[in-house]
Amino acid sequence: MLSRNKSKFINALKTKKFRAETGCFLIEGDKLVSEVLAGRDIPVTELLSTPDWLQHNRFLIHEGVDTITEVSDAELRKISSFETPTGVMAVLKMPSAEYREKNLAGKLSVSLDTIQDPGNLGTIIRTADWFGITDIFCSQGCADCFNPKVVQASMGAVLRVNIHYVQLETLFEKLSQQNQYVIYGSYLEGTSIYELEHTASGMMVFGNESKGIHPTLKHLIKIPVTIPSFSSSAGHVESLNVSAAVAVFCSEFFRGKARKD
Amino acid sequence: MLSRNKSKFINALKTKKFRAETGCFLIEGDKLVSEVLAGRDIPVTELLSTPDWLQHNRFLIHEGVDTITEVSDAELRKISSFETPTGVMAVLKMPSAEYREKNLAGKLSVSLDTIQDPGNLGTIIRTADWFGITDIFCSQGCADCFNPKVVQASMGAVLRVNIHYVQLETLFEKLSQQNQYVIYGSYLEGTSIYELEHTASGMMVFGNESKGIHPTLKHLIKIPVTIPSFSSSAGHVESLNVSAAVAVFCSEFFRGKARKD
Repeated sequence: MLSRNKSKFINALKTKKFRAETGCFLIEGDKLVSEVLAGRDIPVTELLSTPDWLQHNRFLIHEGVDTITEVSDAELRKISSFETPTGVMAVLKMPSAEYREKNLAGKLSVSLDTIQDPGNLGTIIRTADWFGITDIFCSQGCADCFNPKVVQASMGAVLRVNIHYVQLETLFEKLSQQNQYVIYGSYLEGTSIYELEHTASGMMVFGNESKGIHPTLKHLIKIPVTIPSFSSSAGHVESLNVSAAVAVFCSEFFRGKARKD
Repeated sequence: MLSRNKSKFINALKTKKFRAETGCFLIEGDKLVSEVLAGRDIPVTELLSTPDWLQHNRFLIHEGVDTITEVSDAELRKISSFETPTGVMAVLKMPSAEYREKNLAGKLSVSLDTIQDPGNLGTIIRTADWFGITDIFCSQGCADCFNPKVVQASMGAVLRVNIHYVQLETLFEKLSQQNQYVIYGSYLEGTSIYELEHTASGMMVFGNESKGIHPTLKHLIKIPVTIPSFSSSAGHVESLNVSAAVAVFCSEFFRGKARKD
């Protein structure tokens, strides 16, 4: 049974402030929760599930699961963000993400300047994970990656990629001091991504959905890069969606690697 | 002033049934409506705007604008899908989209099997438009491209791309009879997209967000294609988001063209 306190706790986790205070966040739905449990290496603070879900998935429960609370379908509907809940939610501890600038050399990372739409942020994290990117740097103006909508759109990739909220200007200044470290920026004007000589290393920077990359970062970006449009009505098309741009950049940076392997 | 009848009409246009009956759909927001008006070639059945918006944008009004209704901010909030309306909405006639199979030869088109999420569908249409794709074929199970959420996510690209709702199996059967016409399908297993010999022509097929391409279409797909994952945690990553997959496919099919031009 769901106590009033637990119900309050779960609902409070939908706010960024309470997530920051507790270091906890929510994951939801049979698919995502099952995947996390099957991995067995992520501690689960709380599992809230219907008796039916639990009966069918008891084999997934491992010693890292701290508390299990059985809830009715009606109780789950009250705390769920899903229109049709699928039997289970869980509370996890936010993974801690640390980095050293020098360890970023030789691999490709992503920086996001004020990506505000949770769906975009989640999709970007999912795409980055697919291409094996291990570190994403977000400006403080980005959506919170532990927002339930981001977690869901990322299909759990928030648990696999290290996501750092930083002052991008400070980070880029430090990285620029490293020999041969290249910071690429996604712009409407710049070198065509198809003409670029690149290896799968450096930093790819993407800007806000409507305003692009903040002007104060411009001088730190070594190569402005653009994805050329092939549309005959190009004048009318303002830009690609930022998550589509991330997919194209990642694919183009890694394709050389794929052909060599 | 907004009459009760007009308010009912606008709200009814949020349903697929009423859009189909009337052949009309809604566009919303200063950015999109301004862009459509500036193009001057799209007839506008109704423009609903605040006096303030109209005062600043009167130069955009052209003879193809049929009716202008001034509405108050409060009235606009009642009919708007935006949390913060930006002064204007419009009713447009759906563009008619026709095609002949033989005209598809030599160019690249997209088919979508049961893409249900409006945000995904809109983003895919926007991406396709960016890459100059002129025809998108949707199975009847796809979201309606004139759903306000799709129109918005497409940034108006629904007006620039011809979108056809068809029986994909019938279409593919006809196309397969054409010499050298190639139908590519996006799968988790198949030829790596980076190893594929391709030109910017043929049909790219993408399937449902969780179920992929329907098995009944499989025998009509000549080349199953996959986007390889570079993630070391690949076992955990089920797939790329379908709109990210479309971006990667389009980029990879057109990059040869970009380098030759």
